[in-house]
Amino acid sequence: MNNHGLVTRLREQLGDAAVLTDTDVTDAYSRDMMPLAASGKPLAVVLPSDVEGVQAVVKACAEFEVPIVPRGAGSGLSGAANAIDGCVVLVLTKLDQIVEIDEGNRLAVVQPGVVNLDFRNAVEKHGLFYPPDPSSYDWCTIGGNLSTNAGGLCCVKYGVTTDSVLGLEVVLADGSLLKTGRRTVKGVAGYDLARLFVGSEGTLGVITQATVALKPLPQLPSTLVAAFNSTEAAGEAVARVVREGLVPSLMEIMDATSIKAAEAYLKTDLGTSSDCKALLLAQSDSGGEVARKELAVLEQICVDCGADLAYATEDLEEGKMLLQARRVVLTALEMYGVWLTDDVCVPRTRIAELIAGCERISEEVGLRIAVVGHAGDGNMHPTIVYAPDSEDEFARARVAFDAILDVALSLGGTVTGEHGIGRIKREWLAKEIGEVGIAVHRQIKQALDPKNLFNPGSMFSL
Amino acid sequence: MNNHGLVTRLREQLGDAAVLTDTDVTDAYSRDMMPLAASGKPLAVVLPSDVEGVQAVVKACAEFEVPIVPRGAGSGLSGAANAIDGCVVLVLTKLDQIVEIDEGNRLAVVQPGVVNLDFRNAVEKHGLFYPPDPSSYDWCTIGGNLSTNAGGLCCVKYGVTTDSVLGLEVVLADGSLLKTGRRTVKGVAGYDLARLFVGSEGTLGVITQATVALKPLPQLPSTLVAAFNSTEAAGEAVARVVREGLVPSLMEIMDATSIKAAEAYLKTDLGTSSDCKALLLAQSDSGGEVARKELAVLEQICVDCGADLAYATEDLEEGKMLLQARRVVLTALEMYGVWLTDDVCVPRTRIAELIAGCERISEEVGLRIAVVGHAGDGNMHPTIVYAPDSEDEFARARVAFDAILDVALSLGGTVTGEHGIGRIKREWLAKEIGEVGIAVHRQIKQALDPKNLFNPGSMFSL
Repeated sequence: MNNHGLVTRLREQLGDAAVLTDTDVTDAYSRDMMPLAASGKPLAVVLPSDVEGVQAVVKACAEFEVPIVPRGAGSGLSGAANAIDGCVVLVLTKLDQIVEIDEGNRLAVVQPGVVNLDFRNAVEKHGLFYPPDPSSYDWCTIGGNLSTNAGGLCCVKYGVTTDSVLGLEVVLADGSLLKTGRRTVKGVAGYDLARLFVGSEGTLGVITQATVALKPLPQLPSTLVAAFNSTEAAGEAVARVVREGLVPSLMEIMDATSIKAAEAYLKTDLGTSSDCKALLLAQSDSGGEVARKELAVLEQICVDCGADLAYATEDLEEGKMLLQARRVVLTALEMYGVWLTDDVCVPRTRIAELIAGCERISEEVGLRIAVVGHAGDGNMHPTIVYAPDSEDEFARARVAFDAILDVALSLGGTVTGEHGIGRIKREWLAKEIGEVGIAVHRQIKQALDPKNLFNPGSMFSL
Repeated sequence: MNNHGLVTRLREQLGDAAVLTDTDVTDAYSRDMMPLAASGKPLAVVLPSDVEGVQAVVKACAEFEVPIVPRGAGSGLSGAANAIDGCVVLVLTKLDQIVEIDEGNRLAVVQPGVVNLDFRNAVEKHGLFYPPDPSSYDWCTIGGNLSTNAGGLCCVKYGVTTDSVLGLEVVLADGSLLKTGRRTVKGVAGYDLARLFVGSEGTLGVITQATVALKPLPQLPSTLVAAFNSTEAAGEAVARVVREGLVPSLMEIMDATSIKAAEAYLKTDLGTSSDCKALLLAQSDSGGEVARKELAVLEQICVDCGADLAYATEDLEEGKMLLQARRVVLTALEMYGVWLTDDVCVPRTRIAELIAGCERISEEVGLRIAVVGHAGDGNMHPTIVYAPDSEDEFARARVAFDAILDVALSLGGTVTGEHGIGRIKREWLAKEIGEVGIAVHRQIKQALDPKNLFNPGSMFSL
């Protein structure tokens, strides 16, 4: 047996069109969106179109002892979908069917290749709502969302991907098909295997189908914007929102660097004074009088915390315009260079300290760092800007990236709120969860993938 | 080494008062509340009072290769906490501290021995809400709730125990202490180990501490009762509630047998006509106008589905009285004999079929079966009544118990919604999840507990 034999086998089983080996083509499938992570040269890229095809790939790779790197659209930000030399990249995008939408039980069955937005739109036609909404929702796939346990803007009220998962089908290391979970709201038959595979970044098996719980479609959102002349004041407002028992459907924060970038990009001022240091953007999707009350309380909290400006609107278009400032930040930062976005989550009482830490790091490394984030759940995305052609700046960006993780841990936070560990935060996983935690990871990995063929070296090493 | 040596070691490490061997005393710790499950004679019952004590017990038992059965208060209904011959019963009730309540981040850190109701009351004083509310909440412990992933009446709106868990501390098979999870709202650093241990019924480790997310305290509940002259009509009402996008904070169903038992016990009629076949009880905890609207829509759905009576009240005491009928059912059934309560969960569209199946089984076995359940999430508790002194009736009760599980599976349901597999549904776990699923359970069990000392034989066998 040699690896040429594997390619021949894969062609026989999947058909020539589903097995790519031309390096011009395979390069396009060899990495995700994280510039810090290295990527290798795959032996082949395969695109099976059904579960039997996935099983055939896994069995063939097991026989030839060739590693498999599963991937979806490649929108990830941790390098978890990056090829390693000589691997088979297993692309799940052709398993793209919405198998079932069950309105009566508020659930759907979906294949991993379906694009998040397409799925959202499909269930919305049935009056239903699939909450997880990562920023890349117009091109990322459900399979990638499951593998990374993706979050988004909705999490403050609706949780992350795993909170919507009822059951999974997973192709295991021996090619067998595990059906885990249920179609019912509750169920405690056996270990919660579904949630073990969710967020395991392709290291334990290949997810080929998911049963997900859906929610009733919420009301159209009302929007609030508030401007503060200090991040401490904005942080205090967030903490008070939590303490007062409010649950907005969205609550985002932008620091001064983000605000300036957005204003320059949009060629407008955001109605804030020149010494505006932080913006809070919040929404309620409760509708009608309830939404009005929620935003009135939110507005009062912001004013009490010293906001220079606090403005609420029920107008959808106006709300979208206000949110646009948040949405354009990463694009706006490209005016200054390329960016490297970090992903930490801190207790919601400590957001201002995280932003202060990023300001200090920015000064230390001499690079612009813009902080945007999901204030409602403490998940912050400090984004470091560096010159694309400067090795020195890239190196300093890497220093800043790690320094931010250090600050997050020191504040009782985690080194990844929603992007995952992948190939860039392995040593940080070990720092966060300790030796015992890593040992348990290894035990589970060895139990389920004894040949270490599923995405080896991602998340942790054996 | 012999097992007498183990007892000596345990006494040295925990002190004499924490190691019980008198069989009159140890018998009291040898089983939970499930009459179908056998129980053995423990070598000793130990009650450590801190995590170091738990680690000492686990290390000593590992050295002597003696099985450990962890337990809390013993309110379980699956035999998962039942002793096996020669084991050490590890009672966690003396780890009974609420370590921390963090209002600013809406979380608490709690030890396993804290009683659910005590914990609820403690966080309520901070304006916070711990949702999981199993029926035994006035005596069951948080540790037992975690180990069985307990549910309750709140689940239709607030989920089960695992949905509140942020992180755990767990003593592993080698006595080391695993700290998994986080204090932040989001976090995807590594595998979701916390949720692997939740619901693992003591087979993978001993939970010694949990960090749980809390919710804002909801409003006081408004209550609706509706009476139907067919279970199909009540089932249709439940299905429509789901389809219309309503999320009541409680929605319970009682069948004709339950209603009659409650009426006889309470020496009152529930205001229902003599041909009442099903009662629905629902609550909204949204408060004020929103609650009024929710219950008005619920009421209209019930009327549209043919309810003979539908009545809503905002009065707290009246609401409690209405719910009392539901709460007394198991006690009321004791007028007729002892009971055996089953636990299945079916898709919410199929509740009426489950009740019809139970009526058929009741006729076949010649025993009374009362169906009560959490209609909002499809989790039903058909309860079989038999004479305590009749071996024949007990045998028929067992037949009915299994037949109900069969019906649930045939309706696309699960054999346990919230009580767990334990020692009574092991073969049913295998039927539900299949050979591949059981194989994965065995792989994980062997990886984390290679000597098979944690609650061996519960849930599945190696």
